[in-house]
Amino acid sequence: MAVSVVSSGSVSNNSAESLCPYRLVLEHLTSRWGVLVLIELLEGPRRFGELRRAVGRVSEKMLTQTLQTLERDGMVHRDAKPVIPPRVDYSLTELGHEAATQVRALGRWTQARMDDVAQARARYDAAKTPA
Amino acid sequence: MAVSVVSSGSVSNNSAESLCPYRLVLEHLTSRWGVLVLIELLEGPRRFGELRRAVGRVSEKMLTQTLQTLERDGMVHRDAKPVIPPRVDYSLTELGHEAATQVRALGRWTQARMDDVAQARARYDAAKTPA
Repeated sequence: MAVSVVSSGSVSNNSAESLCPYRLVLEHLTSRWGVLVLIELLEGPRRFGELRRAVGRVSEKMLTQTLQTLERDGMVHRDAKPVIPPRVDYSLTELGHEAATQVRALGRWTQARMDDVAQARARYDAAKTPA
Repeated sequence: MAVSVVSSGSVSNNSAESLCPYRLVLEHLTSRWGVLVLIELLEGPRRFGELRRAVGRVSEKMLTQTLQTLERDGMVHRDAKPVIPPRVDYSLTELGHEAATQVRALGRWTQARMDDVAQARARYDAAKTPA
């Protein structure tokens, strides 16, 4: 069974991932580092080190994997310039720009609603605390 | 340093997570199961078992954690009815509805662009294959 975002009925009778390959792509776009890479690249092309500093706390390996995944999905363009020392720039493709714009909108919405989240958390924690 | 979704300058000089608590909330909204729970609840209130079947492949423990996190963040309302046998319904709060609508839009966009993703992957894989 799988959550469908298209049909009006919400629960399909099909097994999930084989018939929902978009789910994997959605996971790439919404992965911890994917989100931050997409948002950062909306500002313009970035070199690897620039991305790493902007994203923060990400290991070199994880950032490399994130970029490769987004490149393979057609979201990120990797431009290796034949210069010495080597220079590699990452930028958004047109597809990636569309995705990143939506991801950033969700990020901005979240940031704008943090007061509501904090209030909800306070209520939740108070209800869980024994009187 | 942290990716900022608000300031025009993209790289801030502040350490990431302490000053960006919204990042954690965004991670909850975009987590593998969070995404699917939010989308499913847009269809209406669901009991735990209904959610589990709709989301697919999620363990009871992971779904419980996901729901608790979303409840604490104020996205999901948990309604435990005092009946025998116990009945618990989960639904979206107003805040959760706003979040879920955006998440579903991204899901729909992803699904609509899967042909582009498939073409990008074919190009990427062909370029990586030795001639």
